[in-house]
Amino acid sequence: MLEKLKQEVCEANLELVRRGVVIYTWGNVSGIDRKSNTMVIKPSGVSYDNMQPEDMVVVSLETGETVEGKWKPSSDTKTHLALYRAFPELGGITHTHSTHAVAFAQAGRDIPALGTTHADYFYGDIPCTRELTAAEVEADYEGNTGAVIIETVRTRRIEPLAVPGIVVKNHGPFTWGKDAAASVYHAVVMEQVAEMALKTLLLNPDAAIAQYVLDKHYLRKHGPNAYYGQSK
Amino acid sequence: MLEKLKQEVCEANLELVRRGVVIYTWGNVSGIDRKSNTMVIKPSGVSYDNMQPEDMVVVSLETGETVEGKWKPSSDTKTHLALYRAFPELGGITHTHSTHAVAFAQAGRDIPALGTTHADYFYGDIPCTRELTAAEVEADYEGNTGAVIIETVRTRRIEPLAVPGIVVKNHGPFTWGKDAAASVYHAVVMEQVAEMALKTLLLNPDAAIAQYVLDKHYLRKHGPNAYYGQSK
Amino acid sequence: MLEKLKQEVCEANLELVRRGVVIYTWGNVSGIDRKSNTMVIKPSGVSYDNMQPEDMVVVSLETGETVEGKWKPSSDTKTHLALYRAFPELGGITHTHSTHAVAFAQAGRDIPALGTTHADYFYGDIPCTRELTAAEVEADYEGNTGAVIIETVRTRRIEPLAVPGIVVKNHGPFTWGKDAAASVYHAVVMEQVAEMALKTLLLNPDAAIAQYVLDKHYLRKHGPNAYYGQSK
Amino acid sequence: MLEKLKQEVCEANLELVRRGVVIYTWGNVSGIDRKSNTMVIKPSGVSYDNMQPEDMVVVSLETGETVEGKWKPSSDTKTHLALYRAFPELGGITHTHSTHAVAFAQAGRDIPALGTTHADYFYGDIPCTRELTAAEVEADYEGNTGAVIIETVRTRRIEPLAVPGIVVKNHGPFTWGKDAAASVYHAVVMEQVAEMALKTLLLNPDAAIAQYVLDKHYLRKHGPNAYYGQSK
Repeated sequence: MLEKLKQEVCEANLELVRRGVVIYTWGNVSGIDRKSNTMVIKPSGVSYDNMQPEDMVVVSLETGETVEGKWKPSSDTKTHLALYRAFPELGGITHTHSTHAVAFAQAGRDIPALGTTHADYFYGDIPCTRELTAAEVEADYEGNTGAVIIETVRTRRIEPLAVPGIVVKNHGPFTWGKDAAASVYHAVVMEQVAEMALKTLLLNPDAAIAQYVLDKHYLRKHGPNAYYGQSK
Repeated sequence: MLEKLKQEVCEANLELVRRGVVIYTWGNVSGIDRKSNTMVIKPSGVSYDNMQPEDMVVVSLETGETVEGKWKPSSDTKTHLALYRAFPELGGITHTHSTHAVAFAQAGRDIPALGTTHADYFYGDIPCTRELTAAEVEADYEGNTGAVIIETVRTRRIEPLAVPGIVVKNHGPFTWGKDAAASVYHAVVMEQVAEMALKTLLLNPDAAIAQYVLDKHYLRKHGPNAYYGQSK
Repeated sequence: MLEKLKQEVCEANLELVRRGVVIYTWGNVSGIDRKSNTMVIKPSGVSYDNMQPEDMVVVSLETGETVEGKWKPSSDTKTHLALYRAFPELGGITHTHSTHAVAFAQAGRDIPALGTTHADYFYGDIPCTRELTAAEVEADYEGNTGAVIIETVRTRRIEPLAVPGIVVKNHGPFTWGKDAAASVYHAVVMEQVAEMALKTLLLNPDAAIAQYVLDKHYLRKHGPNAYYGQSK
Repeated sequence: MLEKLKQEVCEANLELVRRGVVIYTWGNVSGIDRKSNTMVIKPSGVSYDNMQPEDMVVVSLETGETVEGKWKPSSDTKTHLALYRAFPELGGITHTHSTHAVAFAQAGRDIPALGTTHADYFYGDIPCTRELTAAEVEADYEGNTGAVIIETVRTRRIEPLAVPGIVVKNHGPFTWGKDAAASVYHAVVMEQVAEMALKTLLLNPDAAIAQYVLDKHYLRKHGPNAYYGQSK
């Protein structure tokens, strides 16, 4: 089942390694089929070497149960499921431990929008969530990681596809997009803009960008009158 | 038309990727034919994989209209055109989002001349432009990006080929040269000297270089009595 | 003798180079055969190019004498032997001069546990030893390097396999694990988390992680109820 | 003439590129034949691609004149000659613009000895020279660059092969050794220890190392009772 989606998700996972944002088994990508309400996700703790589409695991969005697959799904499966349930516009989700995005997560700071590289993909600061409470960690760690992301997105009144990612405090980045490949693309961009932001702050702790520049750059790529790239 | 220039510009765009200053579609190089007053530039948002000379777009310097090409030209086309019109000595222009040059752009700081690596190619500080106003962004963003570069070069009384690049506030670097390849070379050098400058400032916030060392290094490569390299 | 262990140790040494944590001859990995009480270790100052299993040196754990081998063993042999004697749970040991772990060693600071990347492998801060005294250096430098590691692990009441590594003041990292490959894995992880920690501290000098998050992450991978990865 | 030395020097120049301490034409290596008092050096401004031993230039140590070669010698030739004349123990010299060594040069700071990675190759701090005066730059820039290196080595009472390198203020590193390959090795090590030192200082501005540790590490590799590596 879902052979095409398995291929896309497998390929998206391998792209993480090629782009240098993941070593060993430190990341996972999923994609969703909204018609059948099933998610395809990387298996847990399995090496990227020789990973094949048939290694992907199919999980029910409703029950969280494995529907098909020879492996256990990623240990972050419940986080992915929570996000797909809360935000119907999501088609793919990526989680990495890329260095500079993690540095912001560990510092407990938003990745501030400081330039047009950021604005081309993220329409404003990339939020850092609050810390999970001991009770939340104890009760359902991965589910509540999803919950605190959702809480942050809603509290800050963010349109998920306009700011397609977040850093979870003391943990690291989750990104998303219209499909698995787009979520990986956003993971790579977030790592780049996090490195740029850290180095900018070393040069000028008060660096900032005008809202109208943010607006312009985001909207020339994504708004109704977008003019970047080729006509579809 | 302009087959040789298309080859040069295509090759220069690919060199950006090989030198590690561009990922995805984040950069563009153009070259100009002064005889016919036409510019050749990378298409907008097209992947570098399998990019061919025939993908390049030919644009009239006078009208800004596409003269030939199967794609839309780079979204930064109007910036390139403005620079070619203002500075007749330019033969090629490069724009990237390389990490350390962007850090200075986002910090709103010049890349200071602190050593001979810098002085060999840039005869003085690499300026950071002022911020565009909301009105400038609204009216003609890409054209006014060119205008603020021109304003900065003129206000600071800079000879364009002596300081062949600039960083645009909150955006990133633009570099130029006698042809497309030279503008790419300067983009790579600017990224290197930006990284050196940032790390120098971490070690010594008051670092500086004597004007006579600047003079010596620049002029031994570029002055009338240059003696670096082989005789032409 | 010990042909399989020689293969594993040789392969583990080569993995150090592939992972970018070692250049030239700057590192060494050993593995131990507890049944025969003999250690297999990289030869001293021999290049990684064309290194073969038969270049590995076999050393007696009891006497420290070379039992087999055409080369002298690593100059750090006595440090490895001391650790194997003190901690019977160790199966492999790695020493590198990887950049960010060395920075913490030279700064005389623990690598603080600031996030889940760290907590997945190191259950708490990675300690930095005290400085060796002049007398200790004079009497038996490599042996006392082992002794100060053992002293630090015991003084801090650390379970060696729960925090499988340390940085020696002004020197660099030693890591260990159930076998040679695991000790290399921990060397690579330590370098990653050291880089993340340094960059986190630049963003927030007061960064910290809650103990219950540390507990959760370490125990979901390593505790009796571990659920990360595939069932064994 | 000197075909073997040309091969060694050519190979040493190419090694600079492979080790990532040089891009474009930004570096040069020379070697000397003390019997004939002639130096072999890289040509000026010639690309590393397809560089062959026959491209090397042979220069008289006494007169500084080119004895053989189809190209002009490196523009830093007079600096190399000055060092060979002052320090008869030198067999090879390397100059690069590697990022972190340049950062210390631009900051006008010594690269401090902070750990054993440094001490294994450099027996003490790596000095930064004073600035050249305007008169020195004007009169004989490259010759006086050599002179200020010699002045610094002598003023600080340094044994050249014990601290086989230096950074020239606002310029960059020069390293040396018993032959061309050794000087390249020291250039790579200096870049590594410069990066480690910068990152150490970010973590602890007061970092230092005890003299007896410096002594131990340097002497176990280089002293009369050296025991690192294999017996010769």
